Amino acid sequence: MTDFEGKLALLRDEIDVIDSKLVDLLAQRLAVTSKVGQLKSQHGVPIYAPDREALLLAKRRKQAADNGVSPQLVEDILRRMMRDSYLSQDSSGYQCVNPNCNKVVIIGGAGQLGSIFVDLFKRSNYQVTLLEQDDWPNSDSILKEASLVIVAVPIRHTLAVIEKLTHLPDDCILADVTSVKSAALKAMLAVHQGPVVGLHPMFGPEVTSLLKQTIITCDGRDNEKYHWLLEQFRVWGAKIYPVQASEHDQAMSMVQVMRHFSTIAYGSHLMNENVDLAKLIDMSSPIYRLELMMVGRLFAQNPVLYTDIIFANKDNVAMMKRFAHNFLDLLMQVEQGDKQGFINEFSQVSQWFGHYADIFLKESQLLLQKTNEL
Amino acid sequence: MTDFEGKLALLRDEIDVIDSKLVDLLAQRLAVTSKVGQLKSQHGVPIYAPDREALLLAKRRKQAADNGVSPQLVEDILRRMMRDSYLSQDSSGYQCVNPNCNKVVIIGGAGQLGSIFVDLFKRSNYQVTLLEQDDWPNSDSILKEASLVIVAVPIRHTLAVIEKLTHLPDDCILADVTSVKSAALKAMLAVHQGPVVGLHPMFGPEVTSLLKQTIITCDGRDNEKYHWLLEQFRVWGAKIYPVQASEHDQAMSMVQVMRHFSTIAYGSHLMNENVDLAKLIDMSSPIYRLELMMVGRLFAQNPVLYTDIIFANKDNVAMMKRFAHNFLDLLMQVEQGDKQGFINEFSQVSQWFGHYADIFLKESQLLLQKTNEL
Repeated sequence: MTDFEGKLALLRDEIDVIDSKLVDLLAQRLAVTSKVGQLKSQHGVPIYAPDREALLLAKRRKQAADNGVSPQLVEDILRRMMRDSYLSQDSSGYQCVNPNCNKVVIIGGAGQLGSIFVDLFKRSNYQVTLLEQDDWPNSDSILKEASLVIVAVPIRHTLAVIEKLTHLPDDCILADVTSVKSAALKAMLAVHQGPVVGLHPMFGPEVTSLLKQTIITCDGRDNEKYHWLLEQFRVWGAKIYPVQASEHDQAMSMVQVMRHFSTIAYGSHLMNENVDLAKLIDMSSPIYRLELMMVGRLFAQNPVLYTDIIFANKDNVAMMKRFAHNFLDLLMQVEQGDKQGFINEFSQVSQWFGHYADIFLKESQLLLQKTNEL
Repeated sequence: MTDFEGKLALLRDEIDVIDSKLVDLLAQRLAVTSKVGQLKSQHGVPIYAPDREALLLAKRRKQAADNGVSPQLVEDILRRMMRDSYLSQDSSGYQCVNPNCNKVVIIGGAGQLGSIFVDLFKRSNYQVTLLEQDDWPNSDSILKEASLVIVAVPIRHTLAVIEKLTHLPDDCILADVTSVKSAALKAMLAVHQGPVVGLHPMFGPEVTSLLKQTIITCDGRDNEKYHWLLEQFRVWGAKIYPVQASEHDQAMSMVQVMRHFSTIAYGSHLMNENVDLAKLIDMSSPIYRLELMMVGRLFAQNPVLYTDIIFANKDNVAMMKRFAHNFLDLLMQVEQGDKQGFINEFSQVSQWFGHYADIFLKESQLLLQKTNEL
C-alpha cells in the first residue's frame, strides 16, 4: 500500500464511522416521530404542521451556517427525513371527522383511484362498502342507508353509472372523481335531490399519501351538508381547491387534454422519424432526458385511460387545431428566416408568463440537481 | 397547556436534540471529505470514485435495514451529502493532465459557457488567455504559441470566428463548443491542418461542476494528439460520448430544436387562448406543474439564444412540418371518434419505446416525490 492509499483508507474509515452514527440517529428519530404520529392520531390532529416544520428548518439552517455547513444541504436532508416521517405517521391511522356517518359506498372502489379512498376511509374508521360491476343486482341494499356515495368508475362509464343512482337516501352525499366535471355534476344534480359535490383528485394512483396533494371541488348543492367530507380530506393532508365546473374543465383541457395529446403526437413522431432512442437518450443532457422522460412515461400507462380523457370532450378538438395552426405559422417564420419576428413572439410570451417564468426556471434548476442524484 | 400539548412539546424537544446532533455530524463529515479532496488533488486522482460510492451506500443500506430504517431514505441522504462533498472537494483544484501544454486560448471565454471552461482550466493550473470581440486586433500575438484554442462564441458567430483562425501553430488543438457540429467541424478542418475536435457540452451555464455531465465529442483530425484534452475533461468529472457529427446533429434536431420549438409554440398557444395562468398553476397536480415548469422555464431565458439554435439548420423545418401534420392526422381520429385507431397508434408507440417507457415512468415517479419536497 502506497502512502497515498494508506492515508485515503484512514480518511474513508473516518467517513464510515460518521455515516454509521448518522444511520443510528435516523433510527432514533424514527422512534420519536412514530410517537408523535400516535399522539396526534389519538387527538385527531393533522400530521402536517407547516409552522412547526418552518421553525424546525430555520433553527437547523442557523446552526448549519454557524458551523460552516451549507444550510441548503441541511434543509434538503431534513425535508427528505420529514417526508418519510409523515408517511410512517400516516400508517398509524387518521381521525374520523364524522363519527355519525353511516355507510360510505365507493362505486368502483376496487379500481386504482377508488382503492386509495377505500383505504383512507377505512383507516379513519368509516364503514366502507364497495359497489363493483357484478354488484348491481344488489345495489338497492348496498346503497340503502348510505351517507356518502362516491362514483370512482372509469370516465367512459361515469354518466351511465350516475343515472342509475335514482334511489339514494335524501340526505346522502353524492360525489364523483371524474376528471371532466360539468357533465358529471349536471347528471348528479338531475338524479339526486340531496347534497352533491364534484371532486377531481389531482394525483395519480402512485401516491402513497394525500399529504400536500390537491383535490379540486365543484359545488353542486348543500355545501354545508358535505362540509365534513372536505374536512376529512384535510385531515388526510390534502389541500382543497374550490372552483366552478366550467372553469375547471377549461383549465383541464389546456393542461391535461392538450398536453397528453401533444405528448402522444410527439412520441408517434419520434417513432415515425426512425430515431435511435438508445443513442438519443445517451446523448441527452439532464434537461433533455427530463423532457424525454415526460414523453416516455406516458407510454408505460394504460392507452384506454388516456384515450378516454382525450375523447371525453369534443370542444378540445377545435382548441388543439388552433395549436397546430399556430405551430405551422411560427414554423413559417423559421422557414422565411424571420428571426426578428420569432424573437418578438418569444418575448411577448415571456412577458405573459411574467414572474412565473423565473420561478419555473429556478424550480427546474433545483430539480435538475435532484435528477443528478438519481 | 393541555396534556396533549405538553406531551407533544417534549417529543419535539427530543427531535430537536437529534437534529442538532445531525448538523454536528455533517460538519465533522465535511472536515474529513475536505481532507480527502486535498489528498486526491495532490496525487491527481479523480474526485468521483464510483466503486467507493457503491460500497459506501451498500454498507449503510444494510445497516439501515438491520435497524428498521428505510434503506432508500439513507441512500437519498447519503447521495445528497456526497453531492455537496464533491463540490467542496472540487474547490481544492484539479490535476493538470498535460503540464507541457502551452497557452490555452478561449475565444468568447467571458461568455456563460466559455467562462466555465476558463475557470476549470485555471483551477488545473493551465495558462489561460481570453480572446474577446475587442481583442481581434491583437489576435496574432494572443494565438501565437497556443497549444489549444476553444471557440466558445454564440452560435451565430461561430463560423465567422473559425474562418479567422488561419495562422494557428501547426500542433495546436482547435475545438469548438457549438450545439450544431457538422458545419463547425467542416470549417475547422478547412482553416487548420493540425488536430481538430468538435465538442458539445451537454449542460447549461447553471452547472457548478462537470461531475457526471456529458461532453459529446466529434472527431475531426489527429485523435491521439488531443487525447489529453478528453482526459482532462474526465478528471473534471465529465463523461465523454464520441459520435459522428451528422449523427449528433440529427439527434439534436429531435431533442433540442424540435422540443424547444414546440415548447415555444405551446407557450404562445397558452397566451393566445387567454388562459388564466395563476389559476391554471393552482389547479395543477404535481405532474402538470412539472409540465408547465418545463414550458415556463424557457421563457426566463435569452430569446436570441433559442432563436439561433432553431434557425441554425433549415433541414429541421421539414421535420417539424411532418410533426404538425402527424399531429393534425391524429387529431382527425379524435374528431371522427375513432377511439380504436387512436389506441392502436398509442400501443405502437408504447412498443417502440419498449423498456424505456417503464424506466421513464419509474424515474418520473421518483422525481415527483422530490418535487413534493421542494
